[in-house]
Amino acid sequence: MTLRPLGLDEVTITGGFWGHRQHVNATATLPHIEHWLEREGWLGNFDLAAAGRLPDGRRGREFSDSEVYKLLEAMAWEIGRAGDPALDARFRAIVARVAAAQEPDGYLGTVFGRPGQPPRWTDLEWGHELYCLGHLFQAAAARATTRPDADDGLLGVARRAADLVCELFGPAGRDAVCGHAEIEPALVALGRATGEGRYIDQAALFVERRGRGALADIEFGRAYYQDDVPVREATVLRGHAVRAGYLSAGAVDVAVERGDDELLAALARQWDNTVARRTYLTGGQGSHHQDEAFGQDWVLPPDRAYSETCAGVGSIMFSWRLLLATGRPQHADLVERTLFNVVATSPSEAGTAFFYTNTLHQRVPGTAARGDEVSPRASSSLRAPWFAVSCCPPNVARTLAGLARYVATADDDGVQLHQYTPATVRTTLPDGRPIAFDVETDYPRDGVVRVHVRGDSAAPWTLTLRVPAWASGARLRVLPAAGEPAERDVEPGSATVHRAFADGDVVELHLPVAPRLTAADPRIDAVRGCLAVERGPEVLCLESVDLAAATDGQVDDVADVGIDPSVPPREVDGAVVVRLRAAGAKDAAWPYGAPPSPNGVGDGVDVALVAYHDWAERGPSTMRVWMPIAGE
Amino acid sequence: MTLRPLGLDEVTITGGFWGHRQHVNATATLPHIEHWLEREGWLGNFDLAAAGRLPDGRRGREFSDSEVYKLLEAMAWEIGRAGDPALDARFRAIVARVAAAQEPDGYLGTVFGRPGQPPRWTDLEWGHELYCLGHLFQAAAARATTRPDADDGLLGVARRAADLVCELFGPAGRDAVCGHAEIEPALVALGRATGEGRYIDQAALFVERRGRGALADIEFGRAYYQDDVPVREATVLRGHAVRAGYLSAGAVDVAVERGDDELLAALARQWDNTVARRTYLTGGQGSHHQDEAFGQDWVLPPDRAYSETCAGVGSIMFSWRLLLATGRPQHADLVERTLFNVVATSPSEAGTAFFYTNTLHQRVPGTAARGDEVSPRASSSLRAPWFAVSCCPPNVARTLAGLARYVATADDDGVQLHQYTPATVRTTLPDGRPIAFDVETDYPRDGVVRVHVRGDSAAPWTLTLRVPAWASGARLRVLPAAGEPAERDVEPGSATVHRAFADGDVVELHLPVAPRLTAADPRIDAVRGCLAVERGPEVLCLESVDLAAATDGQVDDVADVGIDPSVPPREVDGAVVVRLRAAGAKDAAWPYGAPPSPNGVGDGVDVALVAYHDWAERGPSTMRVWMPIAGE
Repeated sequence: MTLRPLGLDEVTITGGFWGHRQHVNATATLPHIEHWLEREGWLGNFDLAAAGRLPDGRRGREFSDSEVYKLLEAMAWEIGRAGDPALDARFRAIVARVAAAQEPDGYLGTVFGRPGQPPRWTDLEWGHELYCLGHLFQAAAARATTRPDADDGLLGVARRAADLVCELFGPAGRDAVCGHAEIEPALVALGRATGEGRYIDQAALFVERRGRGALADIEFGRAYYQDDVPVREATVLRGHAVRAGYLSAGAVDVAVERGDDELLAALARQWDNTVARRTYLTGGQGSHHQDEAFGQDWVLPPDRAYSETCAGVGSIMFSWRLLLATGRPQHADLVERTLFNVVATSPSEAGTAFFYTNTLHQRVPGTAARGDEVSPRASSSLRAPWFAVSCCPPNVARTLAGLARYVATADDDGVQLHQYTPATVRTTLPDGRPIAFDVETDYPRDGVVRVHVRGDSAAPWTLTLRVPAWASGARLRVLPAAGEPAERDVEPGSATVHRAFADGDVVELHLPVAPRLTAADPRIDAVRGCLAVERGPEVLCLESVDLAAATDGQVDDVADVGIDPSVPPREVDGAVVVRLRAAGAKDAAWPYGAPPSPNGVGDGVDVALVAYHDWAERGPSTMRVWMPIAGE
Repeated sequence: MTLRPLGLDEVTITGGFWGHRQHVNATATLPHIEHWLEREGWLGNFDLAAAGRLPDGRRGREFSDSEVYKLLEAMAWEIGRAGDPALDARFRAIVARVAAAQEPDGYLGTVFGRPGQPPRWTDLEWGHELYCLGHLFQAAAARATTRPDADDGLLGVARRAADLVCELFGPAGRDAVCGHAEIEPALVALGRATGEGRYIDQAALFVERRGRGALADIEFGRAYYQDDVPVREATVLRGHAVRAGYLSAGAVDVAVERGDDELLAALARQWDNTVARRTYLTGGQGSHHQDEAFGQDWVLPPDRAYSETCAGVGSIMFSWRLLLATGRPQHADLVERTLFNVVATSPSEAGTAFFYTNTLHQRVPGTAARGDEVSPRASSSLRAPWFAVSCCPPNVARTLAGLARYVATADDDGVQLHQYTPATVRTTLPDGRPIAFDVETDYPRDGVVRVHVRGDSAAPWTLTLRVPAWASGARLRVLPAAGEPAERDVEPGSATVHRAFADGDVVELHLPVAPRLTAADPRIDAVRGCLAVERGPEVLCLESVDLAAATDGQVDDVADVGIDPSVPPREVDGAVVVRLRAAGAKDAAWPYGAPPSPNGVGDGVDVALVAYHDWAERGPSTMRVWMPIAGE
């Protein structure tokens, strides 16, 4: 591993955009998820199992156990972050209910194996048994990392289940994999948390087995669960996007643990090709509703974007691990883009409603989901409190609660700052040099990131700051507590300051966050002739409420305007404003005819855009990220 | 009804484009389908039922019975068309096997009701029981129409089943509908064939019941099976496109039988809105793979077009009935467009492989399906011999075999010619005036349609010729056997000649079939900045094999070129040629950036297009109907 991750004991987010999100996550989202898990009976399934009453009364889909485990993981990170004793008590209460359902041989799961249920491991394609256990292991590993001395029993539960998995699916066991990857990164995490090499060996086995027809062929093809091509031979992500992200994350873990450079190179190649041709501007992945899957290269329709929230989480898991393994800053760029534009988009401001899919073009105003109703997963409605398949809310919750992990890393010579948020960083280099600094910033609203060094360094060390790919014209200033300030241009990639830092030294990174126009590769046919507007790491969008406000209600559908690229987007009173013009499309009995199609250019009007992650907070609306160029 | 349909005894297709297709259908496709129905056991299911051996050994999906019935319908039309005694014997043999499976109370179906099977009518959402019977009734009605004196027993089988349906689902019976519409038009057809008004009443009941939550809510929503809004209140087609087309066809039948102008107006409105905003250039309908369904207005992605072949058949059924009911020529326009560009596209030249879906943009060369393998339905491969869900091949077969029905109609004063093909028309007006003419044409290769009147008319009558909407500049010539020729411009819509025709009179319609550029309404975002080329009723496409041939293999992917609109498409040696230019897109690590995106304009090269219905006949290729405009 090139970079060492820092734990929640080393990095704390202290405010700003993400600090606020973490606060909402802790105070609103975690109780909301626990409420719904109780209400829908997914927690109660464990009680029924412990009481020997299953399968009667079991509720939820075959993977509902995993949502409980993801809540536990989110709680574990949140306890590690903020140390709330009341939350710790709630955590232990859930762990006790889960532990009570574990069978003597270590098996844990509420769907298989009892009289009246299908036998265990008889539906590896769709049964999600190993997948669910994976989320259990991740929860246990998060707890072990943040509370190594906890006596709640979760780690023991996970170990007993993992031991069973190793026995049944080990080298001498069944030559099989799970239809939904997840146990791969989870076994590595558990192996690292416990020091059990067997778990990592088992993860490596699962990674190597996949792609050789281990699972049944299905209508979507084996690519759906990445069982079409061995991981080390694949060139791009394909199939179900969440499965692909989780598998890739686990495969990087295995490559790193084994020093398997061939496997690592294969995964980096897959990441490169996926980012170059199969990723939305938002960082979202997956353009098929049918199978929640990647489309072919360049198939990135904004209106039918699936861009599942969980696929964003999986992408961050994959990118983060490649960043640690390779140090390449583009992986942190994609983490940032996906955090701001997928993970931050899913939950409402209040933290109690979620997008499962994240469309880039809403053509028909959604209907607000009722606060007490379960929604279908890919609902076209506004954010919903809960879904029949509700993987996304707890996935967002665990990501936000553990977000400090993604802020900074260390190597032998210093610390790398990857994500910009108010934060404190306190760590020690391998040779014993203590490092301490605080980050002060109003990013992404403002482009200035200020690093305040705390304490004198006896020896020099290197502070590395990521310069995002969009940040042409960035400047770096070093303002020593004593001495002359220095300032220089820095190129996208990384900027470093190597010095014997003194207490009170300040390093300032100035990122140009002025709004900018963005076009797409012409092979992304679905957005030909369109432009988007970005500002720093945020993708902006046009929402019909703002269009109606700017036109006194004359125009209230984003289908009816184009953007005038001759007037650059600009900031007015804190809002990004663009010049739009009426598109002038006319209804016809048949919508095809001799060119030019009607696409007249009406009067211009200045309209404010909103950050994509803030859309759909003001009632039903239409919305688009990609705006047609007026007059073309 | 405004127009009276003419039967296969009144109209015969005698050659040309469709005559050739009918020949291939009769000699290759019908035996091919029968072979696969035997091979897959879907015919054998009836034998097992008759022997009391079900459910053991039953093969195929829950709707496989319907494929047998669709083959029977296709055979019935083909026997009516060409009268082949050998085919009649095959038809009777299948009827005997089907009849043997009918239960004493009239029930017929191989999936429900036996020990070990779910009880009858317990899964109206997905069981397809009424749907299958609908196809049985359509087969019986086709047979009764073409061989009214046949003693094969099929009509009796259908009547007994229909009587059971009326008893169980009539006004005093269960208030329910089938999850897949089909029995609605089928009951009307059977009612007309038998004179049983009860069947038509039952169809009306089914039409009225739908849209009121008769079926369970599902993840796709009740719109999937059109159970979201009552038929007479809906404004546009939505949900599963085949279901929508079949239901609409049956609803027009009911409206006509009942003189229900309100219902008819509602259906015409739905047709108008669907054609204006939810139909592909090819006439194809349905843009979602997920649920084989219509998308929202303007969601018509060429690369993810579902455009199921069966939805094309359903659309023709709907349009044809509206044409009969209203006389509006635009309905015949859409029938023509859909016949040439959907129905004719599905089968291979040889008639033994089929497209299930009909994409308008193939990004990755398909892999040729093996002749002996069953394919998934929405395979991205080339045409396949058979599918796990194989509704499309027999649907194409029955449409082609009975195609003469769509050529011409009659009213009190004459005959209307809707589709242009070599044909003979012989009919009698209600007042006894005999009408006879032959059509001679090389349409659509050539735009001249020549009507040769046979026999003298004692009194004048009116010959009406459809002028397609695209045919601006059409001319009509009347060349009397005796007297002066006359010639005039005719506008898109209809052209009429009213006279006391004499034997040898000729009426010539000259349609301008020169290739033309076509653009799309800018609200169809997915093809912004693109042009298509049409020629007469045919949509053309660019196929990579032709691109490679024109560039000596330098360019072999349709993604790499744009069309130069300053050079009009033109015909060279019988092929339509366009000027293309290299698009010049460059690979980048991240495909979004500051405008202008790279879309340079390279050297021009002239490349031949092919008719869309002829694509994918020369091995794996990429293909696109909509070509980006070079230099934009």
